[in-house]
Amino acid sequence: MRNLQSLVAGSWQVGTGEPQTLVNPTTEEVVAYTSAEGLDLEATVSFARNEGGPALRALTLAERGAILEQMAKRIHEHRNELLELAMINGGNTRSDAKFDVDGAAGALAHYATIGKELGDTRVIVDGDGEQVGQSPRLSGRHVYLPRKGVALLINAFNFPAWGFGEKAACALLAGMPVICKPATSTAVVAARMLELIADAAPPGVVSLVSGSAHDLPKLLGYGDAIAFTGSSGTAQRLRALPNVMSAAVRLNIEADSLNAAVLGPDLEPGSDTWELFLRDLRREMTQKTGQKCTATRRIFVPEDRAEVLIEALVDRLGTVIVGDPFTEGVRMGPVASAQQHRDVLDGIGQLAENCDVVLDGRPAGGKLELKGAEVGKGYFVGPTLLQVAHDAPSKVHDLEVFGPVATIVTTPGTPEVYGQLLARGGGGLVGSVYSDDRKFAAAMLMEAAPHHGRLVFGSKKVAEKAFSPGMVLPQLLHGGPGRAGGGEELGGMRGLAIYAQRTAIQADRALIDAMLKA
Amino acid sequence: MRNLQSLVAGSWQVGTGEPQTLVNPTTEEVVAYTSAEGLDLEATVSFARNEGGPALRALTLAERGAILEQMAKRIHEHRNELLELAMINGGNTRSDAKFDVDGAAGALAHYATIGKELGDTRVIVDGDGEQVGQSPRLSGRHVYLPRKGVALLINAFNFPAWGFGEKAACALLAGMPVICKPATSTAVVAARMLELIADAAPPGVVSLVSGSAHDLPKLLGYGDAIAFTGSSGTAQRLRALPNVMSAAVRLNIEADSLNAAVLGPDLEPGSDTWELFLRDLRREMTQKTGQKCTATRRIFVPEDRAEVLIEALVDRLGTVIVGDPFTEGVRMGPVASAQQHRDVLDGIGQLAENCDVVLDGRPAGGKLELKGAEVGKGYFVGPTLLQVAHDAPSKVHDLEVFGPVATIVTTPGTPEVYGQLLARGGGGLVGSVYSDDRKFAAAMLMEAAPHHGRLVFGSKKVAEKAFSPGMVLPQLLHGGPGRAGGGEELGGMRGLAIYAQRTAIQADRALIDAMLKA
Repeated sequence: MRNLQSLVAGSWQVGTGEPQTLVNPTTEEVVAYTSAEGLDLEATVSFARNEGGPALRALTLAERGAILEQMAKRIHEHRNELLELAMINGGNTRSDAKFDVDGAAGALAHYATIGKELGDTRVIVDGDGEQVGQSPRLSGRHVYLPRKGVALLINAFNFPAWGFGEKAACALLAGMPVICKPATSTAVVAARMLELIADAAPPGVVSLVSGSAHDLPKLLGYGDAIAFTGSSGTAQRLRALPNVMSAAVRLNIEADSLNAAVLGPDLEPGSDTWELFLRDLRREMTQKTGQKCTATRRIFVPEDRAEVLIEALVDRLGTVIVGDPFTEGVRMGPVASAQQHRDVLDGIGQLAENCDVVLDGRPAGGKLELKGAEVGKGYFVGPTLLQVAHDAPSKVHDLEVFGPVATIVTTPGTPEVYGQLLARGGGGLVGSVYSDDRKFAAAMLMEAAPHHGRLVFGSKKVAEKAFSPGMVLPQLLHGGPGRAGGGEELGGMRGLAIYAQRTAIQADRALIDAMLKA
Repeated sequence: MRNLQSLVAGSWQVGTGEPQTLVNPTTEEVVAYTSAEGLDLEATVSFARNEGGPALRALTLAERGAILEQMAKRIHEHRNELLELAMINGGNTRSDAKFDVDGAAGALAHYATIGKELGDTRVIVDGDGEQVGQSPRLSGRHVYLPRKGVALLINAFNFPAWGFGEKAACALLAGMPVICKPATSTAVVAARMLELIADAAPPGVVSLVSGSAHDLPKLLGYGDAIAFTGSSGTAQRLRALPNVMSAAVRLNIEADSLNAAVLGPDLEPGSDTWELFLRDLRREMTQKTGQKCTATRRIFVPEDRAEVLIEALVDRLGTVIVGDPFTEGVRMGPVASAQQHRDVLDGIGQLAENCDVVLDGRPAGGKLELKGAEVGKGYFVGPTLLQVAHDAPSKVHDLEVFGPVATIVTTPGTPEVYGQLLARGGGGLVGSVYSDDRKFAAAMLMEAAPHHGRLVFGSKKVAEKAFSPGMVLPQLLHGGPGRAGGGEELGGMRGLAIYAQRTAIQADRALIDAMLKA
């Protein structure tokens, strides 16, 4: 039984008091416990701010990149151990666990490369210099320098490894020390990963708080940043904190998202792009048991394609064997916790008030078959597909059910109606459009892009090699407007902005050049 | 007597009920009145959203730029009328009024040029395309498209013309319809300016609400944006609005700022850069009667330079003739309102609890001389200079006195101490550093930049032509971290980000190229 440690003011400690228990969602057995009670959170913040920050800012971008490279290497060296922990504590299949753990190493390695390219400097230059005013000597230039505080990284339960990796990569390269607060229910992977990598950086650069720590965000102030992934309810509480508001603490939020996949009216069943659409839907519904903020929740299709699509998709989903991730052949595990299980079943019930249930994965439905596990034990729910007409009342545009659940919405198939339906999602992380008609694709760009942080076009030319839309890439922005929180993570250099202050420098041109070389 | 109109849902209207009165701060005479009571604010928002937005988004960036050009032209054509209104309702000298009115036209013209350069497209591309994954066909690109809502522009009393111009230029070019809410006390200029320019754009693209309209921000939701300049108290109320938080309404805030000017220890009295320092201090303290969010409030100097600096600066400030802006020779008018007058006098009193008053411009001090006006009438306060040691307790780092008031802080003159003092301001819009020592300047870049949105270096090479640091340029960012609100306006293309959604596009490279040409 593990008692998860925290890395507090430079030393590994365990909390006191009644611990929280972490379980294996397949078996409901307790696998670890942890507590943040008794940890000196103030000392954690001030140690990070006063020791970690100066040490990290003294390093060049290349040196910070080398730390990230070292972290990626250590994760890779302990890959099997981490994958197994993710399977035990997260209900991940091995493939799901790789998506998380390799994703963490990949994000760190990507930003390690960016650091190397930025090289032997501490200043990030933004854009070209330009003359301001009449004299050619008067010049302006924009630079980024690290905020002189701490970055609190609050991660969601579904990606204990990648959630830390993608945020920490950007924060550390930008020059901010990080305090990692993983979601408690799946913290085993995060805690072990941080044990492995924390001392790759100077003391205070990486801290960890395991367990509930509601007071932690209240300790932040001017110069600090919070990068949060989780529910919009918690996001609202963070936004409303007086210390966050009054000091304009930089707050980046990734919250709920009703990601939609749009089928172009031009696509014939059986075409390469149609097959890509099906492949992506199956993956997005079932990978990580649908517990991805980028998973497809809404499937918009022309009315005359609905029947054939449903038949094909139900077929594909039928091949997904649900059960104990450690059992051979299992392709989808349980959701991560009892609370998630209750929420998903409740959410399906709410959707079913107005939508037809085409495929029912609920244990109570009697059709859920498990391999290596028994219905009634563990937090299992099978792939669940619903259907509703675009103009019928439903909760499909408002309620994010965070499991292997999606709803087919039948439509006239026009860009205008698709645009209206996308807008009803109130802002999302990723949309996807499947079509081989460039005119339709161009119309969808204008309709869909303003509602999304990322927009993926599936077409025959990329049908074989395209990534599924839920796959977040470090080169491209991750975030979205409105309901999705309005944040911007990753996207190469763009992801550093959360953790740095952009400043316009106005001076004699030769002086600017000299300062930027220093 | 003017009764200020509002432009509401496409028609010019006056409010009902008891109006608010607007005065001439030199004479305290009422010069206009206005009311927002009875105006249909919901219709204003929905007309802008449903009529103005689609009409504006249908235009190319070049066409939007042409609208801005037309607006700049109309302001210029009515320049004398607008200048006179600013002198009457704002207490501006003619030179102050030009700073505001020409600044508005200049910002609009600058973004008109950017629109022309962006040309015949509706999509703004951000950065280069790059391969994602193994296949060279799989490509990623970032674009900006307008948010599909309205931009509420809430402006401060000190820049009724420029405050609208700099925000509207960015919003309109980005493709968002604007609703202008000027500060009531000085709204005469804004209202007249909008009468002149609103119909340069399609109906609903520009709206105006004159008078108090506290409910207006409550009407916004998903897809909308608020650009606010004003007090941090009002900013906090905007941040805390449930509709703003839950829909992640894009909120850009420019609030308080304790801008500092730093004197390098290398500068000898009488040198070119020393003279530039004095010239800038005088301008920043007295231009617009110190009512600029970018005005210098804190003057950091080495201890051994304090005496000679004070003597020279008091001399310079002595040449600033205070009085009725319409009287020949007057260089500084009153502050803008009775409330501002009370606040400034109260603020000087609070600073004086711990600081020495070196030059006392308070009417009660008995040394205030006015030209064309009498002490006791009008909202006058003369240039006021205080002094305190860097390690003495004082409110100089916390209290922004929004008038012709600054405090000299004596220091050891090291970058480290300067950095600590800058940090105590809690984030500012603009800092300035005066030195001919490049090593000192480079050290100050690292110390000062993270605390500022803009950093101005004064040196002998630019001493003759440099802009005073309070001058905001459309090419360079305007905004600052922490106390200053965390916003980012202007800065060329950077200023459009408030009003647009950045989206990563992931597709077949040829498809991306085709869509971006469309």
